[in-house]
Amino acid sequence: MNKTTVLKFGGSSVSTIEKIKSISTSLKDRVEKGEKLIVVVSAMGKTTDSLLNQVNQITSNPDVRELDTLLAIGEQTTISLMAITLNDIGVKSRSLTGLQAGIKTFGQHTKSKIADIDSIFLKNELNEFDVLVVAGFQGYNENLEITTLGRGGSDTSAVALAASLNAPCEIYTDVTGVFSTDPRIFPNAKKLEQVSYEEMLELSALGAGVLETRCVEIAKNYNVPLYLGKTLSEEKGTWIMESSNLLEKKIVTGAALDKDILHVTLSCKDCSTMFVKDLFDKLDEFGVNIDMISQVISNNIINISFTCKDTDRNFLNRSLENLSTSYPNIDCSIDSSCCKVSIVGSGMRDVSGVAARAFRTLCKNGIEFLQVTTSEISISFALKKDDGKEAIRLLCLEFNI
Amino acid sequence: MNKTTVLKFGGSSVSTIEKIKSISTSLKDRVEKGEKLIVVVSAMGKTTDSLLNQVNQITSNPDVRELDTLLAIGEQTTISLMAITLNDIGVKSRSLTGLQAGIKTFGQHTKSKIADIDSIFLKNELNEFDVLVVAGFQGYNENLEITTLGRGGSDTSAVALAASLNAPCEIYTDVTGVFSTDPRIFPNAKKLEQVSYEEMLELSALGAGVLETRCVEIAKNYNVPLYLGKTLSEEKGTWIMESSNLLEKKIVTGAALDKDILHVTLSCKDCSTMFVKDLFDKLDEFGVNIDMISQVISNNIINISFTCKDTDRNFLNRSLENLSTSYPNIDCSIDSSCCKVSIVGSGMRDVSGVAARAFRTLCKNGIEFLQVTTSEISISFALKKDDGKEAIRLLCLEFNI
Repeated sequence: MNKTTVLKFGGSSVSTIEKIKSISTSLKDRVEKGEKLIVVVSAMGKTTDSLLNQVNQITSNPDVRELDTLLAIGEQTTISLMAITLNDIGVKSRSLTGLQAGIKTFGQHTKSKIADIDSIFLKNELNEFDVLVVAGFQGYNENLEITTLGRGGSDTSAVALAASLNAPCEIYTDVTGVFSTDPRIFPNAKKLEQVSYEEMLELSALGAGVLETRCVEIAKNYNVPLYLGKTLSEEKGTWIMESSNLLEKKIVTGAALDKDILHVTLSCKDCSTMFVKDLFDKLDEFGVNIDMISQVISNNIINISFTCKDTDRNFLNRSLENLSTSYPNIDCSIDSSCCKVSIVGSGMRDVSGVAARAFRTLCKNGIEFLQVTTSEISISFALKKDDGKEAIRLLCLEFNI
Repeated sequence: MNKTTVLKFGGSSVSTIEKIKSISTSLKDRVEKGEKLIVVVSAMGKTTDSLLNQVNQITSNPDVRELDTLLAIGEQTTISLMAITLNDIGVKSRSLTGLQAGIKTFGQHTKSKIADIDSIFLKNELNEFDVLVVAGFQGYNENLEITTLGRGGSDTSAVALAASLNAPCEIYTDVTGVFSTDPRIFPNAKKLEQVSYEEMLELSALGAGVLETRCVEIAKNYNVPLYLGKTLSEEKGTWIMESSNLLEKKIVTGAALDKDILHVTLSCKDCSTMFVKDLFDKLDEFGVNIDMISQVISNNIINISFTCKDTDRNFLNRSLENLSTSYPNIDCSIDSSCCKVSIVGSGMRDVSGVAARAFRTLCKNGIEFLQVTTSEISISFALKKDDGKEAIRLLCLEFNI
C-alpha cells in the first residue's frame, strides 16, 4: 500500500472555489507521486457564523441536537465541492461525512468526543480512491444523530483519523508554523522547526493557541507525527513529535502570555486541610478550571493561591459563595490585574538552574511576580498585566528563543 | 395513538426564518389539538440554485454522487432550523435527514427511487415527539451514500412517508389547489374541491404540472388521501383521492395544454409489422418517451404517428437514424409546430359522446386536429400550436369546467 497521509485545511484555506481548486491541484501532485491522502476540511470561510446568525434570529438557546445537525452542513458543503473538483481534474476521490467515515462519538452534543473510527472501512476506500475528503468537526453517536466536536474540532478529527490509520498528520492554516512566542508580542519570535508533544501541550494549555490541547494530546497518545504549516506555501512549517525524536533539545523552546486570568488568594484561620479538599471539590463542581496552585501554612493559617481563566469568573464566584456557607471565616481576594507568563522546554528536565535564570532576569529588570509554579518542562509566573509583554521580551532574549 | 398526518412545505414556503416561524406556530396549533405530525420540507428558497451555481464554477459535469451530498444540505438546513424553532416554542420536535428517517433508495444518483421507509422507527419516534421534521428530496442507498430523488422529490418523500404510516398527506405550495386548467390560459378556470388519482395522474402526465406524476402514482397505489393547498392560507385546497370516494363525478374535470411536443409521422412501404416493433424498441432504447400513438395501414404502407416531448428531440433523432440502417426506405417527418390539448375526467367512463362533443366544439370553431387519441378517462388532440389556447377556452366553456 502507498504511503497514507492525513491533511487538514481550515476554514480560511477553503473559503472560495478558487482556493479549493488550488488545493486540489496541489493534492493531485502528491497523488501522482504515489501518496494516498485523507483530506479533512472545515466549513468554508464564515459559513458557521452565518448559520449561527440564522439560529440567533430564532432563539438564544437552541436545542443542541438540532444545532449539531445544522452546523454539520458547513463541512458537508466543503467535502462535496472538493470531491467534485478533484474528480473533475482526474483524481479518484470520494467525500465522506463524519457518519460515512465511521467517526463514532460519545458525550454531549456540540462538544462530543471521538470514541472510535472505522479504519478498516477507510483502508478499503483508499484501495479504490486516491483522496478521501472527510468532513472535520463532526461525527455521529449511537442513535445515528449528527454530533460536533466543539472548538478545534476539525484538527481533532484529522489527528484521530491519522491515529487510526497510523499515518502522519499535516495541519494547514494561515500561520507558517509554531513560534517560540506570539510575534505580535515579541517581533523577533523564532519559528520552531521541531517541537515535542509535551512542549506543544504546555504551549497550547498556556494560551499559545495555534492548536487546541485535545488534538495535541491525541497525537501524543498515539504517537502521530504532526506538522503545522501554511496552506499552499513553500515555507517550511513545524513538526510536532516525540521528544526522543527531536534532533536537538533546547532548554527553553517557547514562551507564552495569558492575559485573561484571575489570581485568587484565600486564607483560612484554624482550618484543617479538609478545607483544601472542600475548596477544590467546589471549584470542580462548578467547572472552574484552575492552574498555578500554591499553598503555604503559617501561624495556623492556610493560605492558598491559584489562577483561573477570566471567563470562569461567574462559576468561581458561585463556588466560593457556596463554600463560605461551610467556612464563614475565610478571607478571599480576587485580582484581575494579573497575567501569566510561562516558559516551556523539554530541555529543562536535564538542565538545572533554568528557574534561577528566569527569576534573575525578571528581578534584575524590576518585574515582580506574585506567584511561581513549575512543571517538569515549564515555569509559570503570575505578574501584573502591565509587565506581561516586557517579561516575554526579556525571557525570549535571555533564553535566545 | 393520536392521528398522524404528513405535511409538506415547498422551498418558497420556508424561504425565510420568519416563514419558518409562522409555519411552526400553525403546527403548534395542530399538535395542541392532538395531532402527531411529520413535516417534510424542501431547501429554503433559492438554496439549491446557489449550490448549483457553486458547482458550475468548478465543472459542467460534476460527479453525481458528490452532487447529491452537496444538494442534500439544502434540506438539512431547513429541518434543523425548523426543529430549533419548534422546540423553542415548546413543541417536542426532532429533525431527521433522509438517512435518519430510514428512507432507503435505489437507482442512480440525482434520480434515485424510494425502496423502503423505516416506519417502525418513525412510529417509535412519534411516541416521543409531536413533530418529526424530515428532509425531503433525499435518502440513502445500500452503501450509506446520500441520494436525491430528482424532480418533485420532496413531494415524493412526503407521499411515501404517508404511505408507510397509513396517514393522509397535505402538500402546501404557492397555489391554492388544482384548477380545471391553467388560469394563465383560461382565466375562468375553476379550482377543484376534489379530483381522483386517475384524473390527477392524467393531468400531471399531460403537463398540468402542479404535482409530479410519480408522487400521485404512489398516492394512488397506497391509497394515500392527498391534499394540495396554499401555505398558511384559510382558503380550501383540493383533495385528491380514490375515484369511488368522490362525492360527485364530473364528466370532464380538467383540461391541459402541452406546448412543447413534437409530432412525428413515419411511413414504410412494404414493411411487415415487425417494423412497428423495431421502431418502438429503438425509441425505448434511446429513452424517448412517446405518447399519442396512431397506426393506419393503407395500400401496403404502414403509417405511424406519435408525439413526444420536445426535450427528447436529440434522442428521437438518434433512434430514427439508428432505425434507418435496417429500414432505409422509410419516410419521416417531424413537426415541431404542434401542441397537445387534453380533456380529463373519470366521468367519461360512464358517459358516451364526450369525444363527439369535443370534436364538434373544435370543428365548429375551425380548429383542425392532426391526431386524436383517447384513454379511458381522457381525450387528447394534436393541434397547431397557435390554436392551443383557443381550444382550451372552447373546451372549458363546452364542458363547464
